[in-house]
Amino acid sequence: METTFNTLKLVHLGIDTQKEHVVFMRRDCHICISEGFEALNRVLITVKGQSLIATLYIISAGILQSGTAGLSESAWKNLKAKEGDEVSFSHVQPVASMGSIRAKMYGKKLSNGALQNIINDIVKGQYSNIEIAAFITACAGDKLDIHEIIGLTKAMVNTGSKLSWGKKIVVDKHCVGGLPGNRTTPIVVAIIAELGLTIPKTSSRAITSPAGTADTLETMTGINLSIKQIKKVVEKENGCFVWGGSIKLSPADDILIRVERALDVDGEGQMIASVLSKKSAAGSTHVVIDIPIGKTAKVRTEEDAEKLRYYFNVVGKAIGIEVKALFTDGTQPIGRGIGPSLEAMDVLSVLRNEKNAPQDLRNKAIFIAANIIDLVNNQPHESGLITAEKILSSGKAYEKFMAICIAQGGFKEPEFAIHKMDIHADKSGVVTEIDNRKLAKIAKLAGAPHDSKAGVLLKTPLNTKVNKGDLLFCIYAETEGELKYAIEYMKSEPDIILLESVS
Amino acid sequence: METTFNTLKLVHLGIDTQKEHVVFMRRDCHICISEGFEALNRVLITVKGQSLIATLYIISAGILQSGTAGLSESAWKNLKAKEGDEVSFSHVQPVASMGSIRAKMYGKKLSNGALQNIINDIVKGQYSNIEIAAFITACAGDKLDIHEIIGLTKAMVNTGSKLSWGKKIVVDKHCVGGLPGNRTTPIVVAIIAELGLTIPKTSSRAITSPAGTADTLETMTGINLSIKQIKKVVEKENGCFVWGGSIKLSPADDILIRVERALDVDGEGQMIASVLSKKSAAGSTHVVIDIPIGKTAKVRTEEDAEKLRYYFNVVGKAIGIEVKALFTDGTQPIGRGIGPSLEAMDVLSVLRNEKNAPQDLRNKAIFIAANIIDLVNNQPHESGLITAEKILSSGKAYEKFMAICIAQGGFKEPEFAIHKMDIHADKSGVVTEIDNRKLAKIAKLAGAPHDSKAGVLLKTPLNTKVNKGDLLFCIYAETEGELKYAIEYMKSEPDIILLESVS
Repeated sequence: METTFNTLKLVHLGIDTQKEHVVFMRRDCHICISEGFEALNRVLITVKGQSLIATLYIISAGILQSGTAGLSESAWKNLKAKEGDEVSFSHVQPVASMGSIRAKMYGKKLSNGALQNIINDIVKGQYSNIEIAAFITACAGDKLDIHEIIGLTKAMVNTGSKLSWGKKIVVDKHCVGGLPGNRTTPIVVAIIAELGLTIPKTSSRAITSPAGTADTLETMTGINLSIKQIKKVVEKENGCFVWGGSIKLSPADDILIRVERALDVDGEGQMIASVLSKKSAAGSTHVVIDIPIGKTAKVRTEEDAEKLRYYFNVVGKAIGIEVKALFTDGTQPIGRGIGPSLEAMDVLSVLRNEKNAPQDLRNKAIFIAANIIDLVNNQPHESGLITAEKILSSGKAYEKFMAICIAQGGFKEPEFAIHKMDIHADKSGVVTEIDNRKLAKIAKLAGAPHDSKAGVLLKTPLNTKVNKGDLLFCIYAETEGELKYAIEYMKSEPDIILLESVS
Repeated sequence: METTFNTLKLVHLGIDTQKEHVVFMRRDCHICISEGFEALNRVLITVKGQSLIATLYIISAGILQSGTAGLSESAWKNLKAKEGDEVSFSHVQPVASMGSIRAKMYGKKLSNGALQNIINDIVKGQYSNIEIAAFITACAGDKLDIHEIIGLTKAMVNTGSKLSWGKKIVVDKHCVGGLPGNRTTPIVVAIIAELGLTIPKTSSRAITSPAGTADTLETMTGINLSIKQIKKVVEKENGCFVWGGSIKLSPADDILIRVERALDVDGEGQMIASVLSKKSAAGSTHVVIDIPIGKTAKVRTEEDAEKLRYYFNVVGKAIGIEVKALFTDGTQPIGRGIGPSLEAMDVLSVLRNEKNAPQDLRNKAIFIAANIIDLVNNQPHESGLITAEKILSSGKAYEKFMAICIAQGGFKEPEFAIHKMDIHADKSGVVTEIDNRKLAKIAKLAGAPHDSKAGVLLKTPLNTKVNKGDLLFCIYAETEGELKYAIEYMKSEPDIILLESVS
């Protein structure tokens, strides 16, 4: 029988290689020897008629019995493999669409067709991580022109599922990020939904930051909803704030983003395509993009922001979305908390119109909501501002926020972590600079976002006058060890909050 | 005790991830949870005071006991780990030199210092494969200028060991590849060594081809020699032909080449740096580079070849090597055999001055040897040709070849594989084209190079007149299965040997 010559029995190893498909084979396996397979080769594996391409890792020790092979979790799930299934192997040609990427390295443009083939192959799992890294690098640094960005965006839209709401207008907002504590989303959604506009907001968890909007919301309500559940919430309340990870709006982006993160590369073209393809898949017609500008934010100069605005507008138009990009202040954190629960407390304090609520978060949320209202109504700025402010001040936004939470499964109050350390000023002066990145790092070392109650609470925004011994910020952590890590790092970095003497 | 809080016991898993260091941890491991580690994170691991950076794979099934962790073979060897050793973990900053690569993506030049830092970090194992892929892609497609290529070459030279021979002149040759059966090396070494020049030749095994020079030589003599053994052979016989893989002349290149191969990307700048850094490390002063040009060879046009020649000359000069680049015919295989043993038979037939020896291989070997002689003597072409031809015809080259084999451990005759299939012409005509790549693929499917006796024996070079039914080529294989694979592929590709009717 031909099959037995070329097959092995599958064993469940449970090794998580993220999205990359990996197959594990013994060095002395007859298939490895007869096919001339070597470690890192790309191999076509077939289980019960289903095939995929995997990267080969060779095992020399005893974790695999003779005649068996293992798969990474991604390949195991994709092939619906079961312990003992027969798996067969064959050589694989290099993925054809990699040819376009090699041509791109040599300065050729990527056609719409080439981009669609690349994205299709990536979604099918035919690219290894190093091939994805080559794609990202070949496109990084402004190497995609506007036509290529449009082609990439369309290709991403074409590979995902698309939500529809039966409404002429569906709004959304997005922040290009890099600013801790920037949690306007729950407030904006509450205002806009209360106004009667449809705003089915999906948010992401933290990638490299101490909290994503989804992490923050999770300290107050359920965010892990199915598409069916989302539809029910939006039908009832006009809006929702859920985690986007489970509904797979842009499967290509979910794969690319992991490698981008590992490389710490976030090319403009790919970022635009990533954001707008997700908005298109979510059924949005009008989107406000928040671009914070600041020395330690993601976008550092107005010039860079202008280019992003241009790209967002043109690509948005090409796929049928009205985009308005806002430039906002990225010089200091918004609100006081950095970390899921601490940021949630800021949000609630604004929604409840508390006297000491962070005014910067309040103002920014109103500003973004107002711009959504004006974009939809095609009207000048002032009227949106008045509307948004009124809905928030009246307490109606808070009522809507609570109603959405109830519809999403209930509301709970966010809490502080057990361990706390107060950091005091070692001299008097005025706060002239705050290093967002270092504050974010302290919050992460303290445990955020995986410990949702951990993080940093900033007491002194820019331009605050402080006396020696005044409280600058507090660090919260769930374990003493993490508190210690955070404090050690903080001590090694003297200029996190810059105090200039007043003469 | 602080250490036990942050340590696990090592278990030997024996997983070969090639050069990339990987650490395997359980999903429910307290360190993963408290540190917030995720799959694909880069993690600093320390065993017995030795540290390295590894990529994290998370395991959910039972191959690791609670409280244990595993390492890839490369990390295991590098840390001299033993079963049960304590391993500790910490977060790692992104490698600083990746910053230069990100800047390169945005069009900045790489300074000599930046290139040295990148190469140092790569050799230290601080780069993941996807970071290496980003480096390769950022430099591919002509993106390195001549200063950057020189900087890269010098950086590679600085990280390896350097051989010295106590001679003013040490010669070498190199072929940029892509041509099956191009086994001039053993003949050239024999001629040059017989002439009294020092030629300590190291060769590589096949990367993607059916045979590397090292594979071919291994069918006749021992090639896996230590530096000490090489010195002894060269002292006695002036020359050697050994496998370069075991002596680590350019450790950076050994790492880069695996990812280049997986991406099928061979950027000019990196290729030049790879070749010349190895020659410099081998102590060469005069190097002849063979650049075959042809539609199915690696270099396809004379224009591309001219650019390579320019780069080789300028970079060679910068690191103190006289380079002469030769353009040769890359339109058909050299010799008749494709596969280690079959190519060795061609080599022996030329050295033995057999009547039916392949004249193309003979002529090319003489041509290259002559150019080495002329380069060293700084004299016009003709005198080298006469010298080389005389040494070969007289049988002295064959004697020198046998002497070197004996010094390397002995000589054995190459053999044919057991199974054979003759391929006949299905019509009459003249051979007007031979597809090198397809012939190479047949040889590989038949088992070359891992079955050293397998491969293809070509009977009809370009311009041969054949009658219907004449023998075109034979396929040799060690197993019936492999012979079948090769034949199946051959049948699916009609134009491997193009016959044009004679009118």
